[in-house]
Amino acid sequence: MNKIVVIGGSAAGAKAAARAKRMDESAEVTIIQKDPDLSMATCGYPYYVGGVFDNRAALISAPTGVVRDATYFRNDKGITALVNTEATSIDIDKKIVHCRSVQGDSEREIPYDRLILAMGAHANIPPITGREASGITTLTSMADTDYLRRLRDEKKVQRVLVVGGGLIGVEVCEALQHSGIQVTLVEALDQILPFLDWQLAKLVEQHMHSQGVEVICGVAVQEFLTDKGAVCGARLQDGREIDCGAVVLAVGVRPNTALAKNAGLELGDFGGIRVNEFMQSSHSDIYAAGDCVEIPSRLTGKPVFAPMGDLANLEGRVAGENAALGNHATFPGTIHSGICKVFAFQAGSTGMSEKMAQKAGIQGYTAVMHASPDKPGFMGAKLLISKLLVDADQRIIGYQCVGPGDVSRQIATAAMAIQGKLTVTELVNSDLPYAPPFSLAIDHFIAAAHVMQNKLAGLFTGISAQDVWEMVQKSENVHFLDGRSPQEFAEMRLGIGEKLLPIGALRSRLAELPQDKATPIVCFCKISMRGYESARVLQANGYTNVRVMEGGIMAWPYAREK
Amino acid sequence: MNKIVVIGGSAAGAKAAARAKRMDESAEVTIIQKDPDLSMATCGYPYYVGGVFDNRAALISAPTGVVRDATYFRNDKGITALVNTEATSIDIDKKIVHCRSVQGDSEREIPYDRLILAMGAHANIPPITGREASGITTLTSMADTDYLRRLRDEKKVQRVLVVGGGLIGVEVCEALQHSGIQVTLVEALDQILPFLDWQLAKLVEQHMHSQGVEVICGVAVQEFLTDKGAVCGARLQDGREIDCGAVVLAVGVRPNTALAKNAGLELGDFGGIRVNEFMQSSHSDIYAAGDCVEIPSRLTGKPVFAPMGDLANLEGRVAGENAALGNHATFPGTIHSGICKVFAFQAGSTGMSEKMAQKAGIQGYTAVMHASPDKPGFMGAKLLISKLLVDADQRIIGYQCVGPGDVSRQIATAAMAIQGKLTVTELVNSDLPYAPPFSLAIDHFIAAAHVMQNKLAGLFTGISAQDVWEMVQKSENVHFLDGRSPQEFAEMRLGIGEKLLPIGALRSRLAELPQDKATPIVCFCKISMRGYESARVLQANGYTNVRVMEGGIMAWPYAREK
Repeated sequence: MNKIVVIGGSAAGAKAAARAKRMDESAEVTIIQKDPDLSMATCGYPYYVGGVFDNRAALISAPTGVVRDATYFRNDKGITALVNTEATSIDIDKKIVHCRSVQGDSEREIPYDRLILAMGAHANIPPITGREASGITTLTSMADTDYLRRLRDEKKVQRVLVVGGGLIGVEVCEALQHSGIQVTLVEALDQILPFLDWQLAKLVEQHMHSQGVEVICGVAVQEFLTDKGAVCGARLQDGREIDCGAVVLAVGVRPNTALAKNAGLELGDFGGIRVNEFMQSSHSDIYAAGDCVEIPSRLTGKPVFAPMGDLANLEGRVAGENAALGNHATFPGTIHSGICKVFAFQAGSTGMSEKMAQKAGIQGYTAVMHASPDKPGFMGAKLLISKLLVDADQRIIGYQCVGPGDVSRQIATAAMAIQGKLTVTELVNSDLPYAPPFSLAIDHFIAAAHVMQNKLAGLFTGISAQDVWEMVQKSENVHFLDGRSPQEFAEMRLGIGEKLLPIGALRSRLAELPQDKATPIVCFCKISMRGYESARVLQANGYTNVRVMEGGIMAWPYAREK
Repeated sequence: MNKIVVIGGSAAGAKAAARAKRMDESAEVTIIQKDPDLSMATCGYPYYVGGVFDNRAALISAPTGVVRDATYFRNDKGITALVNTEATSIDIDKKIVHCRSVQGDSEREIPYDRLILAMGAHANIPPITGREASGITTLTSMADTDYLRRLRDEKKVQRVLVVGGGLIGVEVCEALQHSGIQVTLVEALDQILPFLDWQLAKLVEQHMHSQGVEVICGVAVQEFLTDKGAVCGARLQDGREIDCGAVVLAVGVRPNTALAKNAGLELGDFGGIRVNEFMQSSHSDIYAAGDCVEIPSRLTGKPVFAPMGDLANLEGRVAGENAALGNHATFPGTIHSGICKVFAFQAGSTGMSEKMAQKAGIQGYTAVMHASPDKPGFMGAKLLISKLLVDADQRIIGYQCVGPGDVSRQIATAAMAIQGKLTVTELVNSDLPYAPPFSLAIDHFIAAAHVMQNKLAGLFTGISAQDVWEMVQKSENVHFLDGRSPQEFAEMRLGIGEKLLPIGALRSRLAELPQDKATPIVCFCKISMRGYESARVLQANGYTNVRVMEGGIMAWPYAREK
């Protein structure tokens, strides 16, 4: 009889245990879990905090509503789950896990034939003075969740500081703001949501501002201010002080690998357990999965630390199968897909951002911005703004998308395109499901591929909003041409000295443009379809230095005049 | 100067003209359009009829709200659009299109260097007695749309008969029902939505029934009943009579190719204009795009007639580019992606249905049904029911999905997977964007691939609801095992003589099962995860004839006891 022991009972551990048992009903499967709960829906914590739902038990229940406790695992899954039990060491030679109860009142040894490590990750605690004060928390456990939910329910705390603008930080901002709490987000980097490139992250930041969250980027917290042991504020490195009754630290997590390290297992560069494609550690009897491991990036081939709930489940499934049956299932790694909801926006990414491509030393790639509605205006269109990256072979390597529109479908589409290694030529004629309630006749993603194709074919030369902004700062001699209608211009405009010349009048008003055909001209409009059309007309009329501001006004990450 | 003439100014024609002009600003581009309108959002007609929006002009407007009339095409696009103008013949030798005004008061000849045919399709009118009566319409033009919208606005007609249960027929049902009209849908085939396999179509049909639409399948209309020249009802072939104040015929369309045929261009087996990968007809100066052509199925390689708005746009783009620049853009064909909204359901398909695979003679394929929520219960999960098809090489060749959940994302994901020719091994570890507002940690599509992998690996033997139904009809000696909880059983059950044996009690109550281990047993539950787990336990305990009813109770296309 195969004795399979799993350390950790959240996403990866619970999945591994269940899969192992389904592969081999005769196996004796045991989960050792330090927490009192099992199979917690960690990614759901912010939504309980924010009152999207009020039934705490839903976080630890099966879809049928049954709480996934030790009895459930025993009866429904045939698995022994030992909660409130901490694995203290692994004796690799004797194939034994030493455990003790969390209360410290008992110890035991659990023998294994195959061991699966799924200890997850620890929240990073930045070494900021005052971090021990009460009222400072992370959001990584049910206990943290309960604490933050009380802020909503008790209504005693008016202001909260969130430190860190990653996925969790941003989700916590929304949750607390929805609870009637004034939130300030401080992010030491120059942008939130590091999986996005700067411009897209700024658009999300603008949206958060519009929802009442104060977002401060590029400044770190220097010190937490306390009053009788409780946090009451924070001083930033630029001297600013922020009042707050609580602080959420959301500056990332690190793999929980003390057990593995002490047992002599190899760790990787990011401190995660090193595993092969079978999710097998450096010791052949021991598998590992979830937030305690490193996995390959399928884009660079290099190991990365990717603590995501979906990957944890997939890794656990592979580890569980192999622990039960021997190595044959494989896990290929990640393409870095991620998404989050930020108030009325969605923000997602798959594959490489431009930043990531640069860091990985990718040569000859091309990036393009694109903005368009997600469906026809008469169906309640919402805007999508995206960035597509292809490599020198014109294969898609990255796609990011933000906005109030259906980002989820866009990123899922792009993720599969990346997985299929499709080229621009293949993308431009993609056959996606179309009906007015769901997309445009030419779906946003396909249109992004069209823009990329046009750029690669030299039909237009793009310029980024950042480069336009620099031109404006340096007062360069550039002619900015806004191709929209007078009414649109009256309602909203950049105010960078642009000339309004509606596309519909351009052909008849060419004389108003600089006579020097080498004058640098930047064309744009709301989303830059008309900007592109304007550029095509100007080029056909002999202008030699015409560029299109990619993504148009909708992708402008700075303040507008109006 | 390149003279490009486009016949037809709806989706394909308008797109082709605009693309051609952007490729070559010096080209003289002319659209000949019989209708009074241009660039009509044909797919949007049902939503205007149903009052999703009330601004008729939105159907013919650019995203900016400007009506796309001849002035717009002239000024914004640099294109001459001749509306209310019918092309009567093409003189291929002289390269001239003969036209006349729709009013019949003028004729003209328009010379071309390159011609693009985009005449669209005609609605099929079945040869039913009484079809000339007033009150019988199709939904293919703005005039039809106006007529049906008046039904909503005037509230004089209480009952409408829709003939044909394809995409348009089903969308019209919803539109009219939303207008307070009692709708009966009659479909001569044994199911609605022919792109779906029977079982999935029946689930949609059940939903339509639940929304108050009377759906009658498998019976044709024999005769329309009239009163003073106006339709007042219909008699079906089984003798039933249906009262109605109006009839919508939605029995498909056929390519509008009289012009092409008369000019001697080759037509294909479905009567559409035959084109090569450049969207070029049998005459090198003449391109064609949209609903008047046949294109290749990318799955079978054979020509098909695929009158879809999204494909029309993509085909038009290729035709326009090649007409302007010579052949270099190519169009690869369709993978048969489609979707529609049906009340609270969405129904979509991409690639081959099982029916289509059988018709195409595909050997050794495997199909599997899968049901699961689209996201966690605490985020307001909605159900998805899908069917995945892979070929003998385990490559995905088809995927259908219906239900109240986010079908759109599922089908878009699958469409890209099909385009990328991914295998089950690749699909099971797909990295899709996950966060609780958007999907499960293991997305529905990935879970479907998991079920397929389990089936291919022989971890379970599936049985369809139809086969179970037949067993029940024949009173075969089969043991049906429902693995849900007593509470779930009390609330909803099939009533096919099944035994309730909750998965949580199965291991301890094995003695209650037939002692003959060869007894046929069919396990199921709500969505058949617990059915699968039950089967695994039984197999491990020596039962040799255990099957899992795929998709569970949620995919049951018949009436339930409760």
